[in-house]
Amino acid sequence: MLDKQIVTSAIDSLGLKDFSKATIREIVVVANKVEAQTGVKYVRMEMGVPGLKPDAIGTEAEIKALQSGVAAIYPALDGCKEIKEQTSRFVKAFIDVDSPASCCVPTSGSMQGAYALFTTLKMASDVKDTVLFIDPGFPVQKTQAQIVGLKSESFDMFNYRGKNLISKIEEYLKSGRIAAILYSNPNNPSWMCLTDSELQGIAQLADKYDCIVIEDLAYFGMDFRKDISHPYEAPFQPSVAKYTGNCVMMISGSKAFSYAGQRIGVLAFREELFNKRYDSLVSKMGIGAFGSVLISRVLYCLSSGTAHSAQLALAAMFKAACDGQYNFLNDVHEYERRAHEMKKIFTANGFSILYADDLGTPIGDGFYFTVAYPGLTGGELMRELLFYGVSAIPLDTTGSRQQGLRVCVSFVKNEQLTDLNERLAEFNKNHQ
Amino acid sequence: MLDKQIVTSAIDSLGLKDFSKATIREIVVVANKVEAQTGVKYVRMEMGVPGLKPDAIGTEAEIKALQSGVAAIYPALDGCKEIKEQTSRFVKAFIDVDSPASCCVPTSGSMQGAYALFTTLKMASDVKDTVLFIDPGFPVQKTQAQIVGLKSESFDMFNYRGKNLISKIEEYLKSGRIAAILYSNPNNPSWMCLTDSELQGIAQLADKYDCIVIEDLAYFGMDFRKDISHPYEAPFQPSVAKYTGNCVMMISGSKAFSYAGQRIGVLAFREELFNKRYDSLVSKMGIGAFGSVLISRVLYCLSSGTAHSAQLALAAMFKAACDGQYNFLNDVHEYERRAHEMKKIFTANGFSILYADDLGTPIGDGFYFTVAYPGLTGGELMRELLFYGVSAIPLDTTGSRQQGLRVCVSFVKNEQLTDLNERLAEFNKNHQ
Repeated sequence: MLDKQIVTSAIDSLGLKDFSKATIREIVVVANKVEAQTGVKYVRMEMGVPGLKPDAIGTEAEIKALQSGVAAIYPALDGCKEIKEQTSRFVKAFIDVDSPASCCVPTSGSMQGAYALFTTLKMASDVKDTVLFIDPGFPVQKTQAQIVGLKSESFDMFNYRGKNLISKIEEYLKSGRIAAILYSNPNNPSWMCLTDSELQGIAQLADKYDCIVIEDLAYFGMDFRKDISHPYEAPFQPSVAKYTGNCVMMISGSKAFSYAGQRIGVLAFREELFNKRYDSLVSKMGIGAFGSVLISRVLYCLSSGTAHSAQLALAAMFKAACDGQYNFLNDVHEYERRAHEMKKIFTANGFSILYADDLGTPIGDGFYFTVAYPGLTGGELMRELLFYGVSAIPLDTTGSRQQGLRVCVSFVKNEQLTDLNERLAEFNKNHQ
Repeated sequence: MLDKQIVTSAIDSLGLKDFSKATIREIVVVANKVEAQTGVKYVRMEMGVPGLKPDAIGTEAEIKALQSGVAAIYPALDGCKEIKEQTSRFVKAFIDVDSPASCCVPTSGSMQGAYALFTTLKMASDVKDTVLFIDPGFPVQKTQAQIVGLKSESFDMFNYRGKNLISKIEEYLKSGRIAAILYSNPNNPSWMCLTDSELQGIAQLADKYDCIVIEDLAYFGMDFRKDISHPYEAPFQPSVAKYTGNCVMMISGSKAFSYAGQRIGVLAFREELFNKRYDSLVSKMGIGAFGSVLISRVLYCLSSGTAHSAQLALAAMFKAACDGQYNFLNDVHEYERRAHEMKKIFTANGFSILYADDLGTPIGDGFYFTVAYPGLTGGELMRELLFYGVSAIPLDTTGSRQQGLRVCVSFVKNEQLTDLNERLAEFNKNHQ
């Protein structure tokens, strides 16, 4: 155990009334302070930040592009030809869905993608003014909705899977106020994955109630229970886009391609949504098609495109993946291996996996998992573990109604696993 | 003259009732169509797009950064240490103003900078809900305000310079509803420059009426009447920041540094505004300081930072400029030379320079200038010139109330100047 007084004073210095509301950044502050004062390194699992090097295909393409002079040249608002074409191929090769190049648009990370979608939705209707978030989820997306001026609804899908999930969603849609349903798949933080029948149900509801689906594929292909890494061959990354044209997929360069630093992602629209006409957009923006407003008004205003060379980097990685020359999931399997080891350590020391299965099938090993410890709330558990040199985040901030922690495996080094085991054993011994 | 029928049908295909409202993109469409059908190249002056190669300092720094692995690493939300420190130095060296590194923030171009400022202002007050644009200006900034939900006011400063400018601005401020004053200096499209006494007057009004000044320095140092390119030596780039702490400067990598493709710019705040506390921000965002909300809420949501390597490219160029190892304005003097030649050609063929002087001093030669032709409105003039293989944009779209065109010199090649002269001569002959 670490020095009690040092940890206590680091925690107290946050001035939080309720520790379960501690944000990632606040946990970071505490861990940094204690590390500085004690010299002991935490096993750090609070930040969802990728920890791997990108494949050379991306950086080499980017360097070549810079050498050829792209730094001087405004990228087209709807993206370079290369990234548009390769995104379209990638979606076909790995999801088995059609999204024409004209409907594929690069953004400054999926963060900008979601912001642009929300901003366009905000102008598209005065009645449908709410985003339904299927929680647990990424809290910043709710802040985005708030800043844009959309309302948020959400529920924790812990107790709603399968048919119950669909009927739960429908309860919200019946209000007529839901503009979009948003979820991430695989799910941050729980690593649950929606099944094909759930995705089909969501698609049917979207069509029935005329709302759009925003599918956040930040962790594309990283449900390692299925190997989707072979282009144009089943199995594919599951997606609602198989079942409705009323949707847009957000594909990030940050996680599966370890390219977070360059802020590059893509929006891949199904053509139906891209061309969908909204009267309110005509009156506000002079044009009616959702995709056109998003590109020529919203993205124009947000940043007039995203770094030219980074577009070409992601395009090169997509291309190599589609050509079968680059297995883009090979490197990130490291997260799977690590999650597997860490789950063993947690469960051997009195913890349970909280979001444990998809309709009976155990969840896969990947970037995140969730844990609980008997008799402690998420806030209490996090506070306690900080005394043992272990940091993560309480689930409360993710919209989960369960008591536990989100564990991110990306920053944990192999040589720290022994530490983790010893620290959790000591914690467990002191809490039985 | 070009084939009348081809040009007429290209213009008619736009379906515009009022040609003076033609946007840049619409002029581009007409010119492209006619070029494709006639094989004749237009002298193209409609797009405000830089046409020079960047200095190798930027791209080399960026390539080195990519080789060192920054593509994998999220940049800090408030920017990398290097760009923060070098921006602060740059502002001191070339404006002679203090903006601490903590108050300097990179953005995905000044486009994102303005959007972030507007978004923060929108949440900062319910009363001050309007941006005052000193026109003529960059029309997209008004679209930004509209999308964010701020109101816009504007006037054409053609007839308001010196004391008249200050009293005209004060008329608007008296309403109590102006959150910010925005202008570009040098001015896009007129290339007028506010004088020090005008900037001082604006600063006093900002303090008196508690509104902020957003100074768009997109064409930093490009008023070539003064050579401001020597670090820490007068003369400096004129700025309102000399006279008020209630302001923020937007410095773009696109024009002076020919780095438009990478979408990189910086916001340099005076410390007073950066730390200024707004009650409305506390209640909406949980923190009150303008700069903190802009970074940790707004920029977080907009894109979570901007491409890591591009930050290091601009930082390297700023550093070399501050160290006196790189005269960043040397290359862009090419625009001055070209504007000088083109103005001679226009005025020799019956045109006049429309926005001609700053309180009696003729404007400098640079990226843009404006022209008028007797007896024709801006829309009529633009329509007519398209028949002669010359494209530009009518001033109406810039908020100017004058009848004329904006001419951008960046895409005109030396070998086209003879064409320009012959075409304008023919036009002039046919219109006398």
